[in-house]
Amino acid sequence: MKRILSGMRPTGKLHIGHYVGALENWVNLQKDYENFHLIADYHVLTTGLDTSNVYNDSIEMLIDWMAVGIDPLRSPMFRQSKIKAHTELHLIFSMLISVDRLQRNPTLKDQIRDLNIENLSYGHLGYPVLQAADILLYKGNFVPVGDDQLPHVEISREIARRFNNQYGAVFPEPEPLLTKFSRLAGLDGNAKMSKSLGNTILLSDDFDTIKQKIRKAVTDPQKVRKGDPGRPEVCVIYSYHQKFNPGETEEIAANCRSGALGCVDCKLRCASKINEYLAPVLDKRKELESKPEYILDCLKYGEEKASQVAENTMNEVRNNMEIG
Amino acid sequence: MKRILSGMRPTGKLHIGHYVGALENWVNLQKDYENFHLIADYHVLTTGLDTSNVYNDSIEMLIDWMAVGIDPLRSPMFRQSKIKAHTELHLIFSMLISVDRLQRNPTLKDQIRDLNIENLSYGHLGYPVLQAADILLYKGNFVPVGDDQLPHVEISREIARRFNNQYGAVFPEPEPLLTKFSRLAGLDGNAKMSKSLGNTILLSDDFDTIKQKIRKAVTDPQKVRKGDPGRPEVCVIYSYHQKFNPGETEEIAANCRSGALGCVDCKLRCASKINEYLAPVLDKRKELESKPEYILDCLKYGEEKASQVAENTMNEVRNNMEIG
Repeated sequence: MKRILSGMRPTGKLHIGHYVGALENWVNLQKDYENFHLIADYHVLTTGLDTSNVYNDSIEMLIDWMAVGIDPLRSPMFRQSKIKAHTELHLIFSMLISVDRLQRNPTLKDQIRDLNIENLSYGHLGYPVLQAADILLYKGNFVPVGDDQLPHVEISREIARRFNNQYGAVFPEPEPLLTKFSRLAGLDGNAKMSKSLGNTILLSDDFDTIKQKIRKAVTDPQKVRKGDPGRPEVCVIYSYHQKFNPGETEEIAANCRSGALGCVDCKLRCASKINEYLAPVLDKRKELESKPEYILDCLKYGEEKASQVAENTMNEVRNNMEIG
Repeated sequence: MKRILSGMRPTGKLHIGHYVGALENWVNLQKDYENFHLIADYHVLTTGLDTSNVYNDSIEMLIDWMAVGIDPLRSPMFRQSKIKAHTELHLIFSMLISVDRLQRNPTLKDQIRDLNIENLSYGHLGYPVLQAADILLYKGNFVPVGDDQLPHVEISREIARRFNNQYGAVFPEPEPLLTKFSRLAGLDGNAKMSKSLGNTILLSDDFDTIKQKIRKAVTDPQKVRKGDPGRPEVCVIYSYHQKFNPGETEEIAANCRSGALGCVDCKLRCASKINEYLAPVLDKRKELESKPEYILDCLKYGEEKASQVAENTMNEVRNNMEIG
C-alpha cells in the first residue's frame, strides 16, 4: 500500500474551504492508501512567533479531522513538534539544498508579497526543507496538494534525490496528488476563504450560524432585488452551489439570470445544502467534544505510530551517513 | 561556577595550531569554569557532504583532547549528532533570525571567498544558528574564540535576547573569551597551520617526525647559509620559538640577525622545544590508544551528561513556548 503524507498548520477550527480543498480528499484517500496526517505546529512559527494558541488550535483541528471522517486508527494524526526526528532530518536536509534554490521558490515570493514581509526569517526561507523532512521521514509516496504547493513537492524530490545519490537510497521521490477543486471563495467575495480574512463558514457552525453568515455574503452587485437579472459566474453563493449542490446548479443559474430566483431564496437553499454536509460533522464533533480523553488517546496513538516509522527512517539515515 | 561551551569540527588528529589556538586555553579554563566540549560533527556537512571519516575523525580528536589534559569527568566531551536537542533548538532558533542578518556575517563572506563557494547551501548560511543552539543548549556563559569567531557569538547573543523577549528568560547572553595567541603559522609560511594545507605538526608526531618536518620548514629566504644575517620577524621557526621557547627568543633573535646562529641549529633547538611540549602528550596518547574501551566510556559519559543538561534546557524551552 502506497503511503501519503498530508498536513496542515494548526489554525484552530477549520472551515469549509479546508474541507473542499483538502479534507474531503483525505477522507476518500483512506480507502486506497496508508495516510499520515501531520499537525504542522512548527510551521506556525514561520509567519508568527506567538505560540500561545498552538496547542488549542492543534486540538481543535484534530477534532475537525476526526469529525469529517479521518479514522484515527487507520490514519495516524500527530504533532510535528512531538516527533523530534523532524528537526534532525531538517538539519541534515538543510545541507542538501542551496540558498539560491530556496530563494527561487515562487510560492515564497507570493507569500512575501501577500504578507508584506520585510525581514524574512531564516526558518521561513527554509520551510520547504522542513516540509521535505515532514514528507520523507514517513517515506511518503504521494502528497495531496493544491497547485500552489507544487514547487514544494519538487524541492522535496530534489532533496530526496540528492540524499540518495550521496548516501545511498533511503527515500522515495514523492509525487504530488493534485486536488482538483482546491480553493473555495470567501463569503466576502475574496478568492480565498481564510480565517485571517474573517470570511469563513466553519465546519463547526450550526444551521443558524450558516444561514446568518450566508445571508450577509456578497452576491452579484448588479442584482439588487428579486427580478433583476443576475450573473452566477461572479457570485460566491453560486460557487458554493456548484460544490455543495451540484444537482441544482443548472436550474439555479437559469433562474438567477432570468431574475426569477431572488438572492434571499437562493441563499437559503445554499445554506440548507451546506448544512446537509455539515450537520453530521457537527454531530460527530459534539460527540468527540464530550470525550476529551479519547481525543488525546487518539493523538497519543498517532504520535506513537508516527514516532516508530520516523525512528526506523532515521536509523537508516544514520547508518547510511555514519553519523547521528 | 560559570559555564563554558567550546567545540571543534572533527578533522582527525589535531596539530599544534589547535593546541596554541584553543586546547592550551581549554585545559587552563578547567580550573575556574565548568566546561562542555562539543565535537561538532554536523558542522562538517556545511563544507562537504562526505561523512565517511567523521566517526574516526571524532575519536581521534577526542583522544587528542584527552591527551593534552581535558579531564573527561570534569569536562564532558560529546558529539553534537548524538544529542538530538541540538537539532530541535536549531529549528526553533531558525525562526528568530533573518536571512539578511545571516548574509551580513563577515566570517561567512570570508569563507565564501576563501573556499570559492558558488552555491552556498542553506545549512551553511545557517551555521551560526546551529552554533547558537550548541552554546545556548548548555546555557554557556562564555565561549572561547579567536577574533574571527566574534560575529558568531554576537549572533548567539541576539538569538538569546530574541527568545527571552518572546518566550520568557531561559538563556544567558554568552560572552566571548578572546584567545590571545590564537593562530599559529604553517610550516610552509602560510599564516595559518591547517590540515588542508598540509603544513602541520601533529600533536601525535614523535621527535623524529617533528625534526623532519621542521627541517623542511621555510625560513627567511634572504638567509641562505650560516653567517648570513636573518630576519626573525619573517621566519616561521622564530614564531614557533616565541610560543614554545619564550625564554630564549631574545638570544635567538640577536644571533639570527648577526648571522651567528644558522638555520640548521635554530631548527633543531625549535624541534626540541616543541618536542618537550608534545612528548608527554604523545605518551598519554599511546596510553589512551591502548584502552579503546575507556575512550568510548568517556565519550558515553560525556554524552549522558550533555544529554541531561540539554534535556533540562529543552524542557524549559518547550514549557515556555507551549510547543514540543
